[in-house]
Amino acid sequence: MQFSTPISVNDIAQLISADVIGNTTAFATGINEIHKVNDGDICFVDHPKYYETCLNSAATVIIINTKNVTIPEGKTLLFVQEPFEAYLTLVQHFRPFIPQQSLINNTAEIGKDTVIMPNVFIGNHVKIGSNCIVYPNVFINDYTEIGNNCIIQAGTVIGSDAFYYNTKKTREVWYKKMKSCGNVIIHDDVEIGAGCTIDRGVTSSTIIGSGTKMDNMIHIGHDTIIGKNCLFAAQVGIAGATTIEDGVTLWGQVGVSKTLTIGKNAIVLAQSGVPASLEGGKIYFGTPTEEASIKKRELVWVKRIPELWKKVME
Amino acid sequence: MQFSTPISVNDIAQLISADVIGNTTAFATGINEIHKVNDGDICFVDHPKYYETCLNSAATVIIINTKNVTIPEGKTLLFVQEPFEAYLTLVQHFRPFIPQQSLINNTAEIGKDTVIMPNVFIGNHVKIGSNCIVYPNVFINDYTEIGNNCIIQAGTVIGSDAFYYNTKKTREVWYKKMKSCGNVIIHDDVEIGAGCTIDRGVTSSTIIGSGTKMDNMIHIGHDTIIGKNCLFAAQVGIAGATTIEDGVTLWGQVGVSKTLTIGKNAIVLAQSGVPASLEGGKIYFGTPTEEASIKKRELVWVKRIPELWKKVME
Amino acid sequence: MQFSTPISVNDIAQLISADVIGNTTAFATGINEIHKVNDGDICFVDHPKYYETCLNSAATVIIINTKNVTIPEGKTLLFVQEPFEAYLTLVQHFRPFIPQQSLINNTAEIGKDTVIMPNVFIGNHVKIGSNCIVYPNVFINDYTEIGNNCIIQAGTVIGSDAFYYNTKKTREVWYKKMKSCGNVIIHDDVEIGAGCTIDRGVTSSTIIGSGTKMDNMIHIGHDTIIGKNCLFAAQVGIAGATTIEDGVTLWGQVGVSKTLTIGKNAIVLAQSGVPASLEGGKIYFGTPTEEASIKKRELVWVKRIPELWKKVME
Repeated sequence: MQFSTPISVNDIAQLISADVIGNTTAFATGINEIHKVNDGDICFVDHPKYYETCLNSAATVIIINTKNVTIPEGKTLLFVQEPFEAYLTLVQHFRPFIPQQSLINNTAEIGKDTVIMPNVFIGNHVKIGSNCIVYPNVFINDYTEIGNNCIIQAGTVIGSDAFYYNTKKTREVWYKKMKSCGNVIIHDDVEIGAGCTIDRGVTSSTIIGSGTKMDNMIHIGHDTIIGKNCLFAAQVGIAGATTIEDGVTLWGQVGVSKTLTIGKNAIVLAQSGVPASLEGGKIYFGTPTEEASIKKRELVWVKRIPELWKKVME
Repeated sequence: MQFSTPISVNDIAQLISADVIGNTTAFATGINEIHKVNDGDICFVDHPKYYETCLNSAATVIIINTKNVTIPEGKTLLFVQEPFEAYLTLVQHFRPFIPQQSLINNTAEIGKDTVIMPNVFIGNHVKIGSNCIVYPNVFINDYTEIGNNCIIQAGTVIGSDAFYYNTKKTREVWYKKMKSCGNVIIHDDVEIGAGCTIDRGVTSSTIIGSGTKMDNMIHIGHDTIIGKNCLFAAQVGIAGATTIEDGVTLWGQVGVSKTLTIGKNAIVLAQSGVPASLEGGKIYFGTPTEEASIKKRELVWVKRIPELWKKVME
Repeated sequence: MQFSTPISVNDIAQLISADVIGNTTAFATGINEIHKVNDGDICFVDHPKYYETCLNSAATVIIINTKNVTIPEGKTLLFVQEPFEAYLTLVQHFRPFIPQQSLINNTAEIGKDTVIMPNVFIGNHVKIGSNCIVYPNVFINDYTEIGNNCIIQAGTVIGSDAFYYNTKKTREVWYKKMKSCGNVIIHDDVEIGAGCTIDRGVTSSTIIGSGTKMDNMIHIGHDTIIGKNCLFAAQVGIAGATTIEDGVTLWGQVGVSKTLTIGKNAIVLAQSGVPASLEGGKIYFGTPTEEASIKKRELVWVKRIPELWKKVME
C-alpha cells in the first residue's frame, strides 16, 4: 500500500508511539509485509528469527520490538513492544474501513460504455475502464482497478479480505487477523465468471493479467499474480501469493497451493492438486500433481498388481 | 426448534387431526427430528424399523402411524396416517415461511458498532452482536444468532435450507423436502469468507464455535457443529450433522462426509476426502483419508512397482 | 435460439454482408451451433475440417468462408470472410445485450403464489411458474424458464454466460468469446441450493429435469441436460454439453467433464472425477472414476504392496 504523499518517520512514530532509531529524517512512501517490500516501505517484524531478513530487505523503515540489532546504513528503526499492533494501527489510519452505505461510491471512476447492472457495490477509489459489463450482485471493494473490455458475471466478489492470520494460540486468541489494505488489479479483456471470489492483497496487489478468462466459482487468494491469456475452468481454487505465468490452463476443480509458480503454458488436468512449483509447457495430473503421462502410467501399474501377485505366487 | 411457550398435546393433536394416546395432559416444548431430540420435544416416526428408537428416545410426544406399540410411561402418542405430513404441518404452523419484502426485518436485533453494509438481507428474529461487519449481498435467514466481533464477507448465505429429503421414489415424487425450521448460531470472533453457504439445522442448530476462521466458498451442512478456533481454507465442504472439534485445520477443497467426528486439533491436508471419523491430534491426507505419513508412503510404493516387476521377472 | 418469426435468407445476408448461394428463397427459423443444430437453423463454419459436417447437418443455412463446396439440395450458403464474426453480429442483432437497470423486467411472467424475495434480478422474457420461492440475491438472466413448485435459494445465478471461447492464440487475442444467446429451462419441482451457478446454452438450452434437487454451490455448464429426480450434493461441478440421465446421484465435490453421458440411476461417490461416459445403474468412485467395487479393491492392493515386496525378497 502506497501513501498519497511521503510521510516523515517522526509522524509515523507518533501514530504508533515508537522510539525512532537510526535515520530520523527519513520519509516512508508506503507499508508492505515482508514478502512484498519495496524501497521506501515501512515493514514490521516481531520475531527474532526474522529480524535479519527484515533489516536487510528493501524496507526503509522497520517497526521492531528490539533495540539490540545493527541498523543498516540510512535505515530507520521504529521501536515498539508490539509491532503487529503497530502495523494494524497504521493500516487503520491510512486505509480505514469506512462503512459505505451507498451502492456506488462517489470516488469511483467508471469508463465510457461500461454497463453497471443493478445491485452492484462499488467501493472507495475503484477504477473501472471502458466497455465493461458488471452483472448484478457483484461486490467490488475499495481501490480495485479494472481495465477495459472486461466482463464480471453475477454474484462475484472482488477484493475480499486476505485469509491471513497471525497464529498466537494463547488462551484468549488463536488467530489474529492481519488486516488487508492491498487491492485487486484486473487488466484488459479479462472475463470473470459468476460466483467467483478474488481476495485483495494483504498490503500489495492481487493481479489478473490481460486476456485471462475464468469460469464460475473460482477462488483466487491474496497477492496471487496471474499472467496473460490463462484459462481457468469452474471451481478452481488458488491459494495466496502464488504466481501463474502466461497461458496456463487449469481445468475444473484444480487446487493450487500458496507461494509457488506454475510456468508458462502449463496445463493442469481436472481435480489435480498442485503442492509445489511446476515447470511450464507440460501437462500435469493428480494429487499431488505429476506429469500426466507418468501419472497415467502409475494408474496402469496399480491395475496390474494382481497380475504381479500371481507371478510371485507361481 | 423450541416453542415460545409449552403447548398442550391436545392443541398439537388438533392442528394435525391426531388421536391422543397415553398421557393426554402433557405439554410439548419443541419439535425435533430423531437425531436431535430432547426432553419435551415432539418427534415423528413413520417406519416400523424406527418405532422403538423413537419411542425410547428423549421425545415426550411421538407422532406415529400405528397404535400397536407399547407406550413408555408418561409419554404421549399422536396417531396419524402420515406422520411426515403432520411434521410439515407443525413446522408451517410454528415457523411459517413469511415472504419478507424488506431487507432488514424489524424484529432483528443488531448490536452496538456493528456495520451492516448495503443489500444485506436480515430475516425474522435474527440477533447480531456488537462490533461485527456484514459485507454487501449477505443473506441471513430467520432466527440466526451471531456473536460479537464477527466478520461476514460479501455474498455469503447463512441459514439456507438443509439438503434433506424423505426418499419416496414413487411415480409422482422421488424426494420430499423435510422443511427446515432450525437455525444457525455463530459464536464470538468468528470470521466467514466471501461466497460461503451455511445451512441451518433441520429442526436444531448449525453451530460455529468462537474464534473459528473460514476462507471463501465454504459449504457447511445442516446441524453440523464446529468447535472453537478451527481454520478452514477455501472451497472446503462439510456435509450435515457432522462434528468438528476445537482447533481442527482443514486445508483447501477438503470434503467431509456426514454424521462423523473429526477430533481436536486434527489437520486434514488439501483436497482430502473424509468418509469416517478421525482421531484428533494427527495429520491426514487422501481420498479416503489416511494418516498423511502412511498415505505418502503408499505414493512411494506405487512409484516403485516397476522396480518390483523387474525383480520378479529376473 | 429461435426467431420469433422466420427470416428470409436475403435479410440475414444483408445483416452480415454475405453472398447468398444455393437456395435464395429459404427462410431461417433460428441460429444454433453445430452441436445443437435443427432443421431451419442457421449454422456457421470457418474451418475446412468441419465444412462437410456442417453442410450435412440439419442446418438449413450455412455461414461459410468458402464457395468451393457442393451445396446439398435446398440448402443456402451465406459466404463471408469471417463466419465467427457474422455469428456474433446475428446474436447481437437478434438477442442484443440490453443493460437492464430495473430489478424485475416488465416482460417477466411470474405465476400465482410465487414469492420473489428482495434483491432478486429477473431479466427480459423470463417465465416463472406458480408456487415457487426465489430467495434474495438470486440472478435470473433473460429468457430463463422456471416451472411450478421450484425453490431457488439465496445468491444463486441462473443463466450466466457459457464458458466457451474460440481459441485464436494470435498476438492480439488468444480467446474470443462465443457470445451466449441460449437460455436455461428448469422444470417443475426442482430445488436449487444457495450459491449455485447455472450457465445458459450457447445457442440452445441448459435443462434441469423435474424433481431434481441440488445442494449448495453447484456449477452446471452450458447446454448440459439433466434428467428427472437427480440428486446432487454440494460443490458438484458439471461441464458443458453433458447429459445426466434420470435418477442420477452425484455426491459432494464430484466433477463431471464435458459432452459425456451418465446413465440412468448411476451413483457417483464423493470427490470422484468423471472423464468419460458412465453406464447407468452402477456405483462409481475415483479420479478417473471406476466402478466403486473395483476402485476399492485397488486401494487394498496398494496397501498390500509391502507384503508383495517381502515375498519377492524372500
